[in-house]
Amino acid sequence: MSANTTALVISAHSADFVWRCGGAIALHQERGIDVTVVCLSYGERGESAKLWKQEGMSLAAVKAARRDEAENAAAALGVSDIQFFDVGDYPLDLGRETQDRMVDVIRKVQPQFMLTHSQWDPYNTDHMNTMRFALDCRMIAQAWGHNPGEKVLGAPQLYLFEPHQTEQMQWKPDTFLDITPVWDKKRAAIECMQGQEHLWDYYTNVAQNRGNHFRRNSGGQSGGRDCRYAEGFQSVFPRTVDQL
Amino acid sequence: MSANTTALVISAHSADFVWRCGGAIALHQERGIDVTVVCLSYGERGESAKLWKQEGMSLAAVKAARRDEAENAAAALGVSDIQFFDVGDYPLDLGRETQDRMVDVIRKVQPQFMLTHSQWDPYNTDHMNTMRFALDCRMIAQAWGHNPGEKVLGAPQLYLFEPHQTEQMQWKPDTFLDITPVWDKKRAAIECMQGQEHLWDYYTNVAQNRGNHFRRNSGGQSGGRDCRYAEGFQSVFPRTVDQL
Amino acid sequence: MSANTTALVISAHSADFVWRCGGAIALHQERGIDVTVVCLSYGERGESAKLWKQEGMSLAAVKAARRDEAENAAAALGVSDIQFFDVGDYPLDLGRETQDRMVDVIRKVQPQFMLTHSQWDPYNTDHMNTMRFALDCRMIAQAWGHNPGEKVLGAPQLYLFEPHQTEQMQWKPDTFLDITPVWDKKRAAIECMQGQEHLWDYYTNVAQNRGNHFRRNSGGQSGGRDCRYAEGFQSVFPRTVDQL
Amino acid sequence: MSANTTALVISAHSADFVWRCGGAIALHQERGIDVTVVCLSYGERGESAKLWKQEGMSLAAVKAARRDEAENAAAALGVSDIQFFDVGDYPLDLGRETQDRMVDVIRKVQPQFMLTHSQWDPYNTDHMNTMRFALDCRMIAQAWGHNPGEKVLGAPQLYLFEPHQTEQMQWKPDTFLDITPVWDKKRAAIECMQGQEHLWDYYTNVAQNRGNHFRRNSGGQSGGRDCRYAEGFQSVFPRTVDQL
Amino acid sequence: MSANTTALVISAHSADFVWRCGGAIALHQERGIDVTVVCLSYGERGESAKLWKQEGMSLAAVKAARRDEAENAAAALGVSDIQFFDVGDYPLDLGRETQDRMVDVIRKVQPQFMLTHSQWDPYNTDHMNTMRFALDCRMIAQAWGHNPGEKVLGAPQLYLFEPHQTEQMQWKPDTFLDITPVWDKKRAAIECMQGQEHLWDYYTNVAQNRGNHFRRNSGGQSGGRDCRYAEGFQSVFPRTVDQL
Amino acid sequence: MSANTTALVISAHSADFVWRCGGAIALHQERGIDVTVVCLSYGERGESAKLWKQEGMSLAAVKAARRDEAENAAAALGVSDIQFFDVGDYPLDLGRETQDRMVDVIRKVQPQFMLTHSQWDPYNTDHMNTMRFALDCRMIAQAWGHNPGEKVLGAPQLYLFEPHQTEQMQWKPDTFLDITPVWDKKRAAIECMQGQEHLWDYYTNVAQNRGNHFRRNSGGQSGGRDCRYAEGFQSVFPRTVDQL
Repeated sequence: MSANTTALVISAHSADFVWRCGGAIALHQERGIDVTVVCLSYGERGESAKLWKQEGMSLAAVKAARRDEAENAAAALGVSDIQFFDVGDYPLDLGRETQDRMVDVIRKVQPQFMLTHSQWDPYNTDHMNTMRFALDCRMIAQAWGHNPGEKVLGAPQLYLFEPHQTEQMQWKPDTFLDITPVWDKKRAAIECMQGQEHLWDYYTNVAQNRGNHFRRNSGGQSGGRDCRYAEGFQSVFPRTVDQL
Repeated sequence: MSANTTALVISAHSADFVWRCGGAIALHQERGIDVTVVCLSYGERGESAKLWKQEGMSLAAVKAARRDEAENAAAALGVSDIQFFDVGDYPLDLGRETQDRMVDVIRKVQPQFMLTHSQWDPYNTDHMNTMRFALDCRMIAQAWGHNPGEKVLGAPQLYLFEPHQTEQMQWKPDTFLDITPVWDKKRAAIECMQGQEHLWDYYTNVAQNRGNHFRRNSGGQSGGRDCRYAEGFQSVFPRTVDQL
Repeated sequence: MSANTTALVISAHSADFVWRCGGAIALHQERGIDVTVVCLSYGERGESAKLWKQEGMSLAAVKAARRDEAENAAAALGVSDIQFFDVGDYPLDLGRETQDRMVDVIRKVQPQFMLTHSQWDPYNTDHMNTMRFALDCRMIAQAWGHNPGEKVLGAPQLYLFEPHQTEQMQWKPDTFLDITPVWDKKRAAIECMQGQEHLWDYYTNVAQNRGNHFRRNSGGQSGGRDCRYAEGFQSVFPRTVDQL
Repeated sequence: MSANTTALVISAHSADFVWRCGGAIALHQERGIDVTVVCLSYGERGESAKLWKQEGMSLAAVKAARRDEAENAAAALGVSDIQFFDVGDYPLDLGRETQDRMVDVIRKVQPQFMLTHSQWDPYNTDHMNTMRFALDCRMIAQAWGHNPGEKVLGAPQLYLFEPHQTEQMQWKPDTFLDITPVWDKKRAAIECMQGQEHLWDYYTNVAQNRGNHFRRNSGGQSGGRDCRYAEGFQSVFPRTVDQL
Repeated sequence: MSANTTALVISAHSADFVWRCGGAIALHQERGIDVTVVCLSYGERGESAKLWKQEGMSLAAVKAARRDEAENAAAALGVSDIQFFDVGDYPLDLGRETQDRMVDVIRKVQPQFMLTHSQWDPYNTDHMNTMRFALDCRMIAQAWGHNPGEKVLGAPQLYLFEPHQTEQMQWKPDTFLDITPVWDKKRAAIECMQGQEHLWDYYTNVAQNRGNHFRRNSGGQSGGRDCRYAEGFQSVFPRTVDQL
Repeated sequence: MSANTTALVISAHSADFVWRCGGAIALHQERGIDVTVVCLSYGERGESAKLWKQEGMSLAAVKAARRDEAENAAAALGVSDIQFFDVGDYPLDLGRETQDRMVDVIRKVQPQFMLTHSQWDPYNTDHMNTMRFALDCRMIAQAWGHNPGEKVLGAPQLYLFEPHQTEQMQWKPDTFLDITPVWDKKRAAIECMQGQEHLWDYYTNVAQNRGNHFRRNSGGQSGGRDCRYAEGFQSVFPRTVDQL
């Protein structure tokens, strides 16, 4: 339909946006769509095991290291804007103050679509709390009486990006995005994540297999569109179209 | 993506295609996409109460009357091709022979997308059996070893159109189609259904309310696209896209 | 079974009780059952777009206007008691204090049945938070050790009234209530909602179509009970009966 | 609403009606509602292990023994009519001929409500096939064009009675029926099932615990209606009511 | 696999661990596995109706009585450690402080498996809140950056024990544990619950019927393992095995 | 519990057993458990696109080629017995005769556990029909009155192996099996599938990523069991255990 110009990613921890939608970010940035990434936390307590195993590590040092990695990855993906809310992790503090900050960002960005975590994640409640938080903030940003005079939000799609162990998360992708043109950028961003090297090949495998799913659904054995790497997304809201 | 050129509707009874996707049919026909409608039965036993209440009615007469109505409705919608399989209803005979006929049609039409009934319908098992039948036939049409030499089917989307009492049918629309430009055609087709006049206003209400849903999802209170009439569809398979 | 004498509606915003269960309220009031309506908020921030589009509007003025509308609607429905908790909206403040106020009301009313929002609503998290809040408060009101000496609550049914875009809300009605005798009152109450005129016909359509569902389930083509307007409800708890 | 006068039970094997709805049968019979029980099979192959362990047993002898048990149980419950379709079990033959026989019975009985098995049963596919079969037959019995001239069926509720290992069957009761007044009859009927003595206490436990559920839902700790034995049922279709 | 040496039960109210997993506790204790039970509250407000019906009862007296019962029951089961968090009930206070206390316990115990309430419970939101709380705490206990230097938690299974009215709780057991060898201990513990005598036979019935389910799944009619009493559990996480 | 000695795989098409449970087969065979594989069809029509694209191909030639591949793969896995039912594919003929043949095999093998396809597969209805067929046959094999005198089946677990595009199939693994010791055999078997080379790396990726899931669930960041390749399975029936 109308050309999208901005998008917003809400990432619970500072690496999530890389594994889960790095391809989507790079692809849309290449097409002139500015993507803002908000990292609610650095994943400093819960997703930095490798750093903490080092001698003499401190919370500040872990945060700094994680921030560096995330900024490098964002640069590799061509992200136009990355913000760190630093609200703590395991658990995230998603109270009223964080909510207001996020609503401010949403209103400023006016995203045509948003991306965040899955609805259920028994391994990592930060993830599912972030999804609920994204729904709350989207709703508040639409309210004419919240900071009256500001431009209110429309009705952007909220895509849930791929969680780890998808089947345990009640996550079912309804959209496969071809990220072949930007795969090199995604892999480069992935390799910025020094602390989680055990996941580099894991998410390369995921991207290749999602490429297979793309091909299967775009034409199958009779010859679908070629696609070597893809990402999957689950839509929360229905689409509105002029043609099926 | 690529321009669609053909579509296929599989309708359990001869009136279903009108209520449930008449707008989609008319809209795509207007845009040069040829829509083939297959009516598996006339609904002669189970959906013709008004006719059967007449004195001296026979099965042949009911079928003829229902066929007339369906052909008139198809003409009103601009359907390029309507076929009647006449396999009986309540229950439909969906055995191997009907399957082979349907696969032949699918292969001939090579639809870019297909439409049929919901997955569950405890009121009307013909409807849910038709959905399973559509999956069977789509699969067979993709098989290189079925009538080798014929052109095999690709991987068309299967849309499930709106059932009666949606919430009882586990049906959740993920796509709203704006049918405002062709509403007059749909209403005209609806009025061809002389035997089911009690449903004319019902499905007009549905179309108006789906229009509200379209607006809510295309922009909401901040000003979505206008849309006065819409139809809803549930996709069975994921979409493959180049942009979110 | 035993005659009900009181009922309680918990409405997130001040208009919800009108669209979603105005018929049930009017019908039971006519039969001598006193219905108490609690509006947790006026929907002053999130559901008053039309007011906010006016020049020089203030929060106080929006609240006053919304309160007027709600009181007028309540009067049209014959509501015996309407209370405004004014806890803010988008989001609602449903903390311990609000909880205690609500438990006090529940204990005072001793409702034979309660009505509130659906369990899931990704568009409007106030709605689904209200459902959880209602469960919390019902439970506390049953506790013998909460304000010992007060009369504890029995085990009233909790009906979930109809949300907007039912299929997106995982809402499945199991009970249709014939509101034909009080339809004029419901329409009058609806027309009190000056700020949401775009929904008047929408909910009239809903009522008519639920009437169709009532007829279909009370007898179908063989001649069900007539019913021109109905409302649908989903029960949270099982019924206890002496006869099927 | 209107007084029910007849009911119909569709039981896959000849003992199912006893364990699963013997109380409902006896209770309604006592109140003048004639209950017809159709046993599709004797459970002669799959549910007669104890008989088959006897020396020199034959299929005919098993059937005769099972029929005796079922007739005795039916007598104990006061069943007005019990019919044995004898279509074989493990698996049942539910083809077109069985369907036509069942539709004839349904039309003759004109039940105000029907009872049958749960929708899912991975242990016993006869059970879930019977549920689908009941939906098929109910639909056909409603068709004006099936044996025109006969009285068509209205829209009776279909209750799914309690399966073994409820949680594995996706069965969720929404209705608890107090069977205390007829418990002695149910226990007597249960004791007619000589071949399945290991289930006598099992279903007594079930009835007692369902009594607890009845009390919990009719008033809880604040004093619900007393009830010592109950049965649970899941409704397939919504109820239509004049009062909540 | 490797021998388990410790387990942890998180019980919302002080009696829950008895009804729901008393057998599992006694059985594992007998085998040298130390089980720690944390009672978040005494159930002093919501689950002590019988006590509150006595003249002149106070909150402190109810708590003391409930604590005595729980300690007696724990002794009957051979529990190695029982702790009372006393965070209030109806509702529980599960804020950051309670979370930190629980994480400390988890880290100290280093359980090979954990047990807690079901994911959904509309009757008792304390129960479902406890399940979410258990997920939160398990996650935090795994975080290397939470109290760095402490031993972090591995990936213990979280079993959801049997709720009351299982079918209303979306609870589906995937594991049946034979508790026949310790049934006498469980019954003794049950009888310590003087205030809830109405549940003694209820949970005896449950244990007997779960024994039937054990036998059915361990061999069925062809001769499964004998088992007279069992408990059922639902696993949250997948198992990792070396053999199917 | 007791040592398993035999297992049975029911594979819709002749390659399914390789991709989906080749590791489980090889692993158990190495441990002395005899695995019987039944291929209902060769996948000759629907899963042999590459062969059909060759000039002058015939159905007989496709079947022969597919059989060779399957036998080679079975040999690579050390399968003790592989049988080809040759009932046709797309669709499979799963009528009474096929059922009887399968029941004979089940009774002869007396498997301690069985493996087959997922419950839902809209891409490939052969797969989901096979799952239902497996349930039917398991039930019949348990019937004392089916071919009286034969040894009846106990209550073996039915594992559903990994489908393609797991999230579309409502498949949720609850068991991860470490297949590292036999990975070379599985890869060798995979490479026997000359006609489906596009899937070799796909299923290698799957095995590696399931290895990650194994590690995550066996200990996580605190040091789970190492595992480089795994397979996932969903259990249909509950487990019966003596220890959690």
